[in-house]
Amino acid sequence: MTAPLRIGLAGLGTVGLGVVKLLHANQALITRRAGRPIEIVAVSARDRSRDRGVSLAGLQWVEDTSALAQRPDVDVVVELVGGADGVALDLAQSTINQGKAFVTANKAMIAHHGIALARAAEAKGVALKYEAAVAGGIPVIKGLRDGAAANEVSRVYGILNGTCNYILTTMEAEARSFAAVLADAQALGYAEADPSFDIDGVDAAHKLSILASLAFGTELDFASVDIAGIRSITAADIVQARALGFKVRLVGLAETSPAGLYQAVKPTLVPLDHPLAYVAGAMNAVVVEGNFVGRLLFEGRGAGEGPTASAVVADLIDIARGEFGAAFAMPVGQLARAQKAPLGARFGQTYVRFSVRDRPGVLAEITAAMRDATVSIESMIQSGEGPDGGVLLVMTTHAGPEHAMSEALSKLSSLDSLLGKPMVMPILTV
Amino acid sequence: MTAPLRIGLAGLGTVGLGVVKLLHANQALITRRAGRPIEIVAVSARDRSRDRGVSLAGLQWVEDTSALAQRPDVDVVVELVGGADGVALDLAQSTINQGKAFVTANKAMIAHHGIALARAAEAKGVALKYEAAVAGGIPVIKGLRDGAAANEVSRVYGILNGTCNYILTTMEAEARSFAAVLADAQALGYAEADPSFDIDGVDAAHKLSILASLAFGTELDFASVDIAGIRSITAADIVQARALGFKVRLVGLAETSPAGLYQAVKPTLVPLDHPLAYVAGAMNAVVVEGNFVGRLLFEGRGAGEGPTASAVVADLIDIARGEFGAAFAMPVGQLARAQKAPLGARFGQTYVRFSVRDRPGVLAEITAAMRDATVSIESMIQSGEGPDGGVLLVMTTHAGPEHAMSEALSKLSSLDSLLGKPMVMPILTV
Repeated sequence: MTAPLRIGLAGLGTVGLGVVKLLHANQALITRRAGRPIEIVAVSARDRSRDRGVSLAGLQWVEDTSALAQRPDVDVVVELVGGADGVALDLAQSTINQGKAFVTANKAMIAHHGIALARAAEAKGVALKYEAAVAGGIPVIKGLRDGAAANEVSRVYGILNGTCNYILTTMEAEARSFAAVLADAQALGYAEADPSFDIDGVDAAHKLSILASLAFGTELDFASVDIAGIRSITAADIVQARALGFKVRLVGLAETSPAGLYQAVKPTLVPLDHPLAYVAGAMNAVVVEGNFVGRLLFEGRGAGEGPTASAVVADLIDIARGEFGAAFAMPVGQLARAQKAPLGARFGQTYVRFSVRDRPGVLAEITAAMRDATVSIESMIQSGEGPDGGVLLVMTTHAGPEHAMSEALSKLSSLDSLLGKPMVMPILTV
Repeated sequence: MTAPLRIGLAGLGTVGLGVVKLLHANQALITRRAGRPIEIVAVSARDRSRDRGVSLAGLQWVEDTSALAQRPDVDVVVELVGGADGVALDLAQSTINQGKAFVTANKAMIAHHGIALARAAEAKGVALKYEAAVAGGIPVIKGLRDGAAANEVSRVYGILNGTCNYILTTMEAEARSFAAVLADAQALGYAEADPSFDIDGVDAAHKLSILASLAFGTELDFASVDIAGIRSITAADIVQARALGFKVRLVGLAETSPAGLYQAVKPTLVPLDHPLAYVAGAMNAVVVEGNFVGRLLFEGRGAGEGPTASAVVADLIDIARGEFGAAFAMPVGQLARAQKAPLGARFGQTYVRFSVRDRPGVLAEITAAMRDATVSIESMIQSGEGPDGGVLLVMTTHAGPEHAMSEALSKLSSLDSLLGKPMVMPILTV
């Protein structure tokens, strides 16, 4: 089996160039590990004339991306174009229909169309691989699909968006506001000009839904992910959380319970003795809890040219070795339909921050609403200035159902002593 | 492909029973993930009459372990007997010679005979799998072989022995001596009655040599691992290290350099901002540094019934899926011969602790020896009582070759102001 594995590469952005560079730099080693050479034969990208600083000599330039799938000299198409639909999805479908292997880093497309693509790949007996779609260079797809395969998984969760983690850990280190740190991150190129996809949690939610499918043997259900981003987090939240023994992280968490499948991306308080509390900057980390293995942690760089290319090429090596099978760890027909847990069914501790007018009786009104909704308060700090010019009031609760806190806040919504919307964050149960 | 994968299991100790329990508890899920049932058909262990608290009904009991390999109803032999040679090695050889797959948790056997077994497995086209041999439940063999396969790896290192990590982190938390904590660990069953295999670093060295082969594409070279255990670490070392910004961990580290392959298991100072500093108790963690992926960390339980069984069954699932290939990530003929780096070639910072007589001039003598050997001192603390009744003197050096420190200590060996042997530990380069 020394015939090269021939790649058609769609997309020459950061990751695409990373793949070109990696296959060149580590060529001899990859040939040894894969058992055969892995060679790019054709590329397609929007602008042929742009100088990318990398030699594309010897590669066929294909103007029409979708033509990559038809080429007889291409064994595998690598899609690094992006977007849930459009060019990327067309290319995926036509590649698989041609009976060729398909590798992608496209989390949006996998989150929305992964099951349909897996079904098609299964019918054709070809590989569908997407290690790079979740947590960049961290081999967590393989970790769940293969490494933890013997386990019934109860929870999978982690820090899945490097931009958010960079912003939160910088706010923490420098005691600065969200807006100021975001502006810096944009200037430095760590955040997009339109950062909403990252900071509103959608990117992390795509990844979480993929992890949940692999972990629980359920069909992808991106639509059921409960999503909150990090825009409302203040420097004061981070200070108060720290005083209570926590750090604030954007955590994507999926867990199964008798109530159904819970999937959420939310800013979350992480206890200081948990490894996620030490994941800093643009790093990602994923925790898998299995009934025999216990807690596994995978940590590394979640984005960028090198790490993402590393994941793409790892998939190519699997294919070159002939070591691939069901894309979602089992035949699509074996995946269960996910049953979404009712909103508010999650049981756990909660952090809530109010900004209140400085006048007598406010605290009594709030605690009465909590009592009436059967929320049990564990700790309370009333100090410093809150957003909107009020007094900052921070509480943590004992473990209880999330809907109780929602009821309490609903009772309080008409209270004119409250300034702005309370900020609610779950506390990670360890 | 719905015919079951039929297992012959040798060894019904902790891990063997774990495998029996896991395959029973997660039966339906494993069938979905593996694409076919995985069933134990025959077992062999020393004492048939012992009550193991697990039903073995329906399983063929085989008196002669080596007969497992011959049985026509066995597709895969799982070896959980242990020992580098003897029964385990005989069973491995006869299983592979019979053209059957072989799965083991036996780090000593793989460290000593892994290449020969891989060569035999390759010739027969059968699987040789050993995920459970390194770091228990953490899928780090798969992580290196598959997940990081696209990378040239410069270093692989980690906390590879849970017993040592339990002892060190307990000494740290409770400010107690090595001997006292070891005695407790033995009473609690966390350490063996004869703990030397663990605390003298041999177990970690077996694992390190396996990781190094996978990471660097070199033949296993256990004999070249430079091994030091944790017996000489005092509570004072841990306190002083902490004051300097480090924790003490038993670290197995392999790195390539122009000087050759460096493999060492040594008590090591780990900076407080490094994730290994937060690996507590019996947990294990492995770091892989690749030229594209950057730093990957894998953390989890490194031993015990559940985690080790999880790794064994993950290997069985790979085999059931037909997703296996070269045991050491590439054909044996492609592995390079490891060139051992000369002793002392490693370049880095060092910690050294002396116990000295409390009299004038000692410090001058020590610093002169350091100067003469071109060791550059970074910090020094002279305080508290050292072992053997002397004054404790602790130094850290700037980065330099390890042989310089050896020369300095050799110059000092005749100095009668020194009480006992100095304790030298490398500082992890980050």
